[in-house]
Amino acid sequence: MNAPLSSHALPHFERRSVPKVMLERLMARFADRCSISRSVCEQHGRDESPFEVTPPDAVVFAESTEDVAFVVKLASEYLVPVIPFGVGSSLEGHLLAVQGGVSIDLSRMNRIVAVHPEDLTVTVQAGVTRTQLNREIKDTGLFFPIDPGADATLGGMAATRASGTNAVRYGTMRENVLALTVVTANGDIVRTGTRARKSSAGYDLTRLLVGSEGTLGVMTEVTVRLYPLPEAVLAAVCHFPDVGAAVNTTIQLIQLGIPIARCELLDANAVRAVNAHDKLSLLEQPMLLMEFHGSPASVKEQAEAVQDIAREFGGEQFQWATTPEERTRLWTARHHAYFAGMQIRPGCRTVTTDTCVPISRLAECVTAALDEAKRAGITHYTVGHVGDGNFHVAYLIDPAIPSEREMAEALNHTLVHRALRLQGTCTGEHGVGLHKQGFLVDEAGEMAVEMMRTIKRALDPKNIMNPGKIFTL
Amino acid sequence: MNAPLSSHALPHFERRSVPKVMLERLMARFADRCSISRSVCEQHGRDESPFEVTPPDAVVFAESTEDVAFVVKLASEYLVPVIPFGVGSSLEGHLLAVQGGVSIDLSRMNRIVAVHPEDLTVTVQAGVTRTQLNREIKDTGLFFPIDPGADATLGGMAATRASGTNAVRYGTMRENVLALTVVTANGDIVRTGTRARKSSAGYDLTRLLVGSEGTLGVMTEVTVRLYPLPEAVLAAVCHFPDVGAAVNTTIQLIQLGIPIARCELLDANAVRAVNAHDKLSLLEQPMLLMEFHGSPASVKEQAEAVQDIAREFGGEQFQWATTPEERTRLWTARHHAYFAGMQIRPGCRTVTTDTCVPISRLAECVTAALDEAKRAGITHYTVGHVGDGNFHVAYLIDPAIPSEREMAEALNHTLVHRALRLQGTCTGEHGVGLHKQGFLVDEAGEMAVEMMRTIKRALDPKNIMNPGKIFTL
Repeated sequence: MNAPLSSHALPHFERRSVPKVMLERLMARFADRCSISRSVCEQHGRDESPFEVTPPDAVVFAESTEDVAFVVKLASEYLVPVIPFGVGSSLEGHLLAVQGGVSIDLSRMNRIVAVHPEDLTVTVQAGVTRTQLNREIKDTGLFFPIDPGADATLGGMAATRASGTNAVRYGTMRENVLALTVVTANGDIVRTGTRARKSSAGYDLTRLLVGSEGTLGVMTEVTVRLYPLPEAVLAAVCHFPDVGAAVNTTIQLIQLGIPIARCELLDANAVRAVNAHDKLSLLEQPMLLMEFHGSPASVKEQAEAVQDIAREFGGEQFQWATTPEERTRLWTARHHAYFAGMQIRPGCRTVTTDTCVPISRLAECVTAALDEAKRAGITHYTVGHVGDGNFHVAYLIDPAIPSEREMAEALNHTLVHRALRLQGTCTGEHGVGLHKQGFLVDEAGEMAVEMMRTIKRALDPKNIMNPGKIFTL
Repeated sequence: MNAPLSSHALPHFERRSVPKVMLERLMARFADRCSISRSVCEQHGRDESPFEVTPPDAVVFAESTEDVAFVVKLASEYLVPVIPFGVGSSLEGHLLAVQGGVSIDLSRMNRIVAVHPEDLTVTVQAGVTRTQLNREIKDTGLFFPIDPGADATLGGMAATRASGTNAVRYGTMRENVLALTVVTANGDIVRTGTRARKSSAGYDLTRLLVGSEGTLGVMTEVTVRLYPLPEAVLAAVCHFPDVGAAVNTTIQLIQLGIPIARCELLDANAVRAVNAHDKLSLLEQPMLLMEFHGSPASVKEQAEAVQDIAREFGGEQFQWATTPEERTRLWTARHHAYFAGMQIRPGCRTVTTDTCVPISRLAECVTAALDEAKRAGITHYTVGHVGDGNFHVAYLIDPAIPSEREMAEALNHTLVHRALRLQGTCTGEHGVGLHKQGFLVDEAGEMAVEMMRTIKRALDPKNIMNPGKIFTL
């Protein structure tokens, strides 16, 4: 059933290293913006996944779309892989140079290209991070809602079809990317999409590229939708006797169509971790961290409706955060959960699950996963964008102990296949990368994956764009 | 600049007719569900566009995905085109059998496959129409919002990436299709997507197929999102001194983030037409027809905010429709605009524009288009999903007078190129079909269109899936 790669053991890939003559041509153009230093290459050959470091042969720090096109043209000539790199916050091995090649670091492409507050759009270079974007557009009264936790680049977020805490109300990168500038496999610079809110003009190349994990092209500019900062924002914390009660509250509020902006689950382990990390004193029980956006009246109305639902399920001790400072404190805690969690077990690596299921099946899916983790005796915590049916169990493993990694993989495998039976997906927002290739086949079926491979072969016949990710050819 | 087809003159296509042996094999399986009668074929060789009727060689009335797969397998064997057909409400020549072949009529595939009210999703066969869907799910308290005016099938709406009046709040087919069952060019049955609200599992085949106009596969089942029926619904009509004032009101309410559910423009000509057609007595001035969804309090709040904005722009005589009967009467009038418009000039055909621009540029775009139409002395009216920046000028032409068609094409050409300069699109919701192929190249650029062709060649190497639409190979 679980055909190729769904573990953190790296399979064998044939190397296609950068030949000397190509390196010389890179050096001639980029000088000290092209590095082959061991530390720089190693830094670009890893991400937040537990895969072993797999460095590229060289790293180019691109400063323009033309820089990227130059590298890809050379790569095409010498049949060498190129791997786009943002800030390295991927969780699935996307950035590993499994066949060698050139990592194109886009972090210096961090310019806001054009803000159009009057149209609620902005175009940025792919290396702009989401917090930078929101900082730079603060004066417009608008904001970019997609928030995957890490301060990822817009390019990286588009490449993995990221989402995060605000997606329940504002959608994911799928819904919010309007247009792209992309360097294709032969080094051409192609623009997809327009700034119009909708279009029926031919194949949706933008949506095909969003989530393609660098395997079809390197995104260099991204145009996204912005939203007016809500007139009123209210954050709330509510504690529950068990995880099921928190999730059932979520299910009901979604079914009723309450336009909640954020609805995050933290299990007791996660709360303990953020308490320790951020010196908070949250009740160490499962909790929902919520946020409501709208007019003062509508925010109040939403919050009251949710409070009524939560009470039915034993939710208590609602605490409200109305000032920006209180809200920031709570949300920073949520955003620190990943690193806070790692401190539960110093020196550990995290194996993170990412299933997403139809909302009505969420309680059974979460509860079973936590029961299994508990029975297995593995250190873990759980957070979830539960309003979307998406949650992450983080198994904290000692990378030196193979049996721990195997156990985490086994638990993940069971969880993914339960999610698939419930008509869900193996990955809500992290992408496939190296880790979930077997799961992808189980989920989509061999024929759908073969359609993907057919598209890949057609658009990247030399297989130089981040090869080995999503599927093997 | 305007390379291939952007007119209603049919270019020459090589015919690839159904050979006798294939027809016999179709007859053997389908008996009287396969027709070669002239009237049936002619009915399937036209749509609402002004193109001349171009009938297929045969029509098969499919009743299952397996029926469709059977036809496509034969078509692949005999290199014959297949064209999916829903209700024939396309506006861009999508359904014309320009190379002959088999029209697959999906209207008998009109079964609701699975309603999941608890997950806000429904799976339907592709031949279900939107009003049928809403009728059949009425008891669930949910509804499907996408409303392109015509009572189109879900398959047809997905194939053209349709939207319509509710898109400003609920999105288009792009945002609302979760999963598809599709018969690919070699007759395989492939499922794309899941019922989860979001996913990062590989290439977004669903979004690639949505809007592909039958050129990559025949959709046989469509899974879409549903929404709770709003607690309160309020419709309002407001009249303006000129079109610019109505559009500027719209621009401002969108910029402020008011979550209006529908925001439709009718110019004075359109109002006159619906008054005559539906025996209404609306003031014959430009008007906005709006609808607000939410709680009673939030609906009131939205309506008041919009009234304040409208007043600034000279909007007057707000009329509210609160009962379902009043609302239905108003919206039926809007939905009849297309046929009401045609009655302005009996015997005419309609050439409809479909540009969509960034919201801030909408007023200048609409105003210039109407000035040009007026100066040209052509009979026309205008309606618009202005909340999305999308509007339609309908030029009513006598198909027997070539100069009228040429004038309509010329006006459309000017309008499209203005929209493109304003970073908009030539088609907000109708698709490219036969008519907008030149515009697509102007909009997306030759390289992006070549990417589309590359995908088409890879997934349909024999070019049998609705050939000649979107682009020529």
